[in-house]
Amino acid sequence: MLTFYYASGTCALASHIALEDAGAPYEGRRLNFKAGEQRAEPYLEINPKGRVPALATPRGVLTETPAILAYIAQSFPENELAPLYDPFAFAELQSFNAYLCSTVHVAHAHRMRGARWADDEASFADMRRKIPETMSACFQLIETGLFKGPWAMGERYTIADPYLFTLASWLEGDGVDIAKFPRVHDHFGRMSERRSVKRALEMEAA
Amino acid sequence: MLTFYYASGTCALASHIALEDAGAPYEGRRLNFKAGEQRAEPYLEINPKGRVPALATPRGVLTETPAILAYIAQSFPENELAPLYDPFAFAELQSFNAYLCSTVHVAHAHRMRGARWADDEASFADMRRKIPETMSACFQLIETGLFKGPWAMGERYTIADPYLFTLASWLEGDGVDIAKFPRVHDHFGRMSERRSVKRALEMEAA
Repeated sequence: MLTFYYASGTCALASHIALEDAGAPYEGRRLNFKAGEQRAEPYLEINPKGRVPALATPRGVLTETPAILAYIAQSFPENELAPLYDPFAFAELQSFNAYLCSTVHVAHAHRMRGARWADDEASFADMRRKIPETMSACFQLIETGLFKGPWAMGERYTIADPYLFTLASWLEGDGVDIAKFPRVHDHFGRMSERRSVKRALEMEAA
Repeated sequence: MLTFYYASGTCALASHIALEDAGAPYEGRRLNFKAGEQRAEPYLEINPKGRVPALATPRGVLTETPAILAYIAQSFPENELAPLYDPFAFAELQSFNAYLCSTVHVAHAHRMRGARWADDEASFADMRRKIPETMSACFQLIETGLFKGPWAMGERYTIADPYLFTLASWLEGDGVDIAKFPRVHDHFGRMSERRSVKRALEMEAA
């Protein structure tokens, strides 16, 4: 049994959907971010980073979305959520997820989490103003360069799809119209219809 | 044959060392960042992101350090640079590399690359002032939480080691004394003695 720690409206949604896609046996534990649960004991004993997602397994706790996604794909290989035995195709998938993790998520985080990288209110306001520009640039690269279609990595649905869906769901709040990116927009609509996505979103909203 | 695109003083060093560790057949191509080669044709045709590293393979170009590192480990499995067939151990390794990629490298980038996330000189100065604090916090977590020893992931040298070495090599320029982190410091010294590290550094300096 796995225990999955998440909070609503965070990147944990990607792993949550993947757990549903994989049919993994897991128990969900939602943290209350408004109450600061992620930065308090006992959660810091589970994940000293004070963030989500975290996936507690029989051998220990895993953190970081790209690592958790690959773990789910590798632990439930019958679902073929990643081309595990093709080093090039697996690397392309991991490259896509690394871009989401280190560039897209990071760009978005400058809207609300500027205190990670600066101290002055004026800097935070400056960062917030730039969000539509940086997020648009990220999704333009995805739209025209990285996204293969019909799924992120081509013909097969993979662990890149719930991650892309999750970050695309932030565009509206970031002041970016997803319709500017027709392929990403179409993907978002198809993802929204999947049972795994509906189930994860229902759990996050419950 | 692989073609590896890099620039001196960048995170490409991690993949460069791993190529040497793997005994991979590759040709190195150094970009001149001061001349802006990474943002000009013909390089943008190779990597539209305008960054390094990029690894051109017979099937296409790969980018993003964690993806390239896992590709090297998976393409040259006889070197056992990653626990490829142990989903949990592989995920721990990938989690370590994802943290370096999305948190440590990103923290460091606020020293010189503030224009990625803001527009005002005052914001850049604010970001620069915070670098010693953010980089110290990252390496404190590595020192006490993530680093297993004697290598990053424990008894075996893996693709996490050249990545950690590369980011640790930035600490001095970031105004952080590596000696504050004894285990990371010891690791840095042992890495410096490895043939693969010396060879990659010689190529970058040549």
